[in-house]
Amino acid sequence: MNSNYQKLVERLEETSRLGGIMGILHWDQEVIMPSGAAESRAKQMGVLAGIIHEKSTDPEIGKLLDQLKDENSFDGFEASNIREAQREYEMETKVPKKLVMEMAELSSKGHQVWAKARSENKFSDFAPILTQLVELKKHWAEYVSPELQPYDANIDLYERGTTMAEITPVFEKIKSELIPLIKEIKGAEYQPDSSLLSGEFPVNKQEALGRRISEDMGFAFDKGRMDVSVHPFCGGSHPTDVRITTRYRTDNFIESLYAVIHETGHGLYEQGRMEKGRDLPASEALTMGIHESQSLFWERMIAQGFAFCKRYLPLITETFPEKFKGISEEQLYEAVNISEPSFVRVEADEVTYPMHVILRYEIEKGLFDGSVEIKSLPDLWNAKMKEYLGIEPDTDTLGVLQDTHWSGAAFGYFPSYTLGAIYASQFYETLKQEKPDLENEIESGNLAIIREWLNQKIHQKGRLLSVPELVKQVTGDELNPEIFLNYLKNKYRKIYRIN
Amino acid sequence: MNSNYQKLVERLEETSRLGGIMGILHWDQEVIMPSGAAESRAKQMGVLAGIIHEKSTDPEIGKLLDQLKDENSFDGFEASNIREAQREYEMETKVPKKLVMEMAELSSKGHQVWAKARSENKFSDFAPILTQLVELKKHWAEYVSPELQPYDANIDLYERGTTMAEITPVFEKIKSELIPLIKEIKGAEYQPDSSLLSGEFPVNKQEALGRRISEDMGFAFDKGRMDVSVHPFCGGSHPTDVRITTRYRTDNFIESLYAVIHETGHGLYEQGRMEKGRDLPASEALTMGIHESQSLFWERMIAQGFAFCKRYLPLITETFPEKFKGISEEQLYEAVNISEPSFVRVEADEVTYPMHVILRYEIEKGLFDGSVEIKSLPDLWNAKMKEYLGIEPDTDTLGVLQDTHWSGAAFGYFPSYTLGAIYASQFYETLKQEKPDLENEIESGNLAIIREWLNQKIHQKGRLLSVPELVKQVTGDELNPEIFLNYLKNKYRKIYRIN
Repeated sequence: MNSNYQKLVERLEETSRLGGIMGILHWDQEVIMPSGAAESRAKQMGVLAGIIHEKSTDPEIGKLLDQLKDENSFDGFEASNIREAQREYEMETKVPKKLVMEMAELSSKGHQVWAKARSENKFSDFAPILTQLVELKKHWAEYVSPELQPYDANIDLYERGTTMAEITPVFEKIKSELIPLIKEIKGAEYQPDSSLLSGEFPVNKQEALGRRISEDMGFAFDKGRMDVSVHPFCGGSHPTDVRITTRYRTDNFIESLYAVIHETGHGLYEQGRMEKGRDLPASEALTMGIHESQSLFWERMIAQGFAFCKRYLPLITETFPEKFKGISEEQLYEAVNISEPSFVRVEADEVTYPMHVILRYEIEKGLFDGSVEIKSLPDLWNAKMKEYLGIEPDTDTLGVLQDTHWSGAAFGYFPSYTLGAIYASQFYETLKQEKPDLENEIESGNLAIIREWLNQKIHQKGRLLSVPELVKQVTGDELNPEIFLNYLKNKYRKIYRIN
Repeated sequence: MNSNYQKLVERLEETSRLGGIMGILHWDQEVIMPSGAAESRAKQMGVLAGIIHEKSTDPEIGKLLDQLKDENSFDGFEASNIREAQREYEMETKVPKKLVMEMAELSSKGHQVWAKARSENKFSDFAPILTQLVELKKHWAEYVSPELQPYDANIDLYERGTTMAEITPVFEKIKSELIPLIKEIKGAEYQPDSSLLSGEFPVNKQEALGRRISEDMGFAFDKGRMDVSVHPFCGGSHPTDVRITTRYRTDNFIESLYAVIHETGHGLYEQGRMEKGRDLPASEALTMGIHESQSLFWERMIAQGFAFCKRYLPLITETFPEKFKGISEEQLYEAVNISEPSFVRVEADEVTYPMHVILRYEIEKGLFDGSVEIKSLPDLWNAKMKEYLGIEPDTDTLGVLQDTHWSGAAFGYFPSYTLGAIYASQFYETLKQEKPDLENEIESGNLAIIREWLNQKIHQKGRLLSVPELVKQVTGDELNPEIFLNYLKNKYRKIYRIN
């Protein structure tokens, strides 16, 4: 083993383990921490974040990376670790400390100001800080990636290698076909009945059901947990310690169940990482978009599919007999696939969701190229909602103030949700071609066939390939919204009996 | 604020917060972590321990401490922080790194070897590593406290300022009176009935009962939690995040309940620390012995007292009506106070417990002064058990191999348990004098009177005083086994009707 490389590995492992510790602190805070500990926990996390920053900007790493540049004997795995270390080191060291601290302070303050503005429906209170956050993130972009346009540099943080030049035409294509589809669905004569999903569903039964399905999907509970938090998420500290959460309401079980399935999709990606170098970046999940492709694959393509409904209707009926006795597979399938424009992104269905994302993408793009003014945001938001979904929120609380992302300066994050949905549909198309008997396999309970395919094709690949390389290798294609759109059109025209 | 002092404070706060993070990792590992994560967690904890060591041995701290020596303007709180920092810095820097690493490795290996030897009842497998551990701890003592005898240096780690010169006569006194008392109890004609404590006790009812009593004692659940672990403990990350655990068996609820009460006693010490400088050593719990005095105070003096039994019999009867209908307060009181020699320290009652500790103390003392040979330990152990408790274990698993302490090189820890019991009896005596109506207050449910007294007299004092100073301030006395012995003799002669 090359000794400079070995030294780099030791440092990367240390940082990765500290990151795992941060994962536990974060999970603990969201799931289990006593409320009175908020302040002390914030200080603990601050100290740890400082140490992680200290360790990742140690000039010794820069020296090692410089020396490694002159060496030329690394295999794909090693080269990937060096590449990742280089990217991370540059990201952490290129930005002046003053700017880093300004961003941290402003994000922290921004979150508080935003939360208050949202609850009081006062966008004007949030506007000044949003203006500052955009300006800081523009400065930041100039330091980090002077060769990129500022918004592209922000996107790159979550979806490396993807730029507006690639996203804009894809989103335009989606708009051109989804807006009409949403109108068709809204105007359809036949509207499925969702009332069977309302009722009284005890939490313990919901939990047992979710746990069972998560297990069937392949989630290893000896290397993970399932708990409750205000917002469902997938966290933890290591591929052997992956923690998913959901939340329960007693008048609806589908939201909770599909949250479990979604987070299990993320969890399988983490648990399924390559055995080699699990404390090294080459084994980590590739991008936010690819991560989301895994959760959406299971939630939308599989669990909202007919075969899955057929498979699990008996278990659901056994769990909630009063409600589901006499309900048919078709009824369940249609009920879990109701599509309807709504104000809130996180509650949107798979047809309307991309429009929420595109709206935000266009606004962010405009904020960074100067074509959109902060003060115009509420009107612009509502006009776009009207145009894309045919509805307008009465308040900014349900409109431009709904998401936390901007208050934390996380510009460029939103596109990943829809990129993930597109990748998921492409992976699904390929899987169906490679396993023509897929529907029967799902009906007979063989979910392992899906997990293993995703594991071999995607999870095991870590960061060895770029996103385009990975998508090409798996599907033979590039990012292709046609497949996504055809999937939606075929599925929903059939459900809503649109010819 | 003095600027050198302020710089020191910042460093101490950082270390304290990292220690809090370690507390969460440890709690998580014992309570909630998936089994498959053992290896990754060990590595995470190793990295964090390394960073804490790095931070606490930073020469910059040494420089600050040197400069602070020449300054003379600190109040008690500040002086205590400086004193604690000095002690910690010397402890961490005086020992050569090679020895620190040898000790860490040998302790880790020692634990595994011990666990195997214990399960296979083979002391001879553990003997060689125990020999090495004692030798290493002798070397360590020479570096850390060359002015002390090696065993005193080890005791000092847990019970600062206390030496064999103080402990030996106290323990001799206890031996001289407890051995006869244990014989008296064993030979007494009247033996209380413990059968009322056996039965079928559902875990959820036990949990509700324990939680209610812990709350009555004053444990703040918005600044703490109660969970389940294999061995009950009190941990957490901060006075606002104190986590106690217990364990449940369905055929006995008293063990679990008294574990809750014991750990709540520790927890109240932590939650009750002074408001000032909670991330600084001056506010921390004083010693292991004083910590144990708080848990034992509540468990033994209060919860095994008659007034407490009287107060809680109705709630216990309400919780387990089949078992407790018709049971009198006297019956409950006697049943929770049965005293009987047994092999295992952690299961011992308050009369026999000190003999387990004294046995270990004498052996440790002999190992460090060379008068006891490792290979003689099993025979020596059994001979002392025979002499002190009148019983001899059939196996070393139930004898010399039962405790984990030696495998982790924690020599000098055991005395703290009995020092704590003595302090607890002295505090109890003083409290009764200051609050003559104490028994009635307990009967009427006013446990706050106890908590507030302990809080003002002990918890709030942090490390401002030494143990002798604190004990003097609270009780007007020094460490005094007479009070402990009188407490035991009066209580148990009455229960066992011995004249």
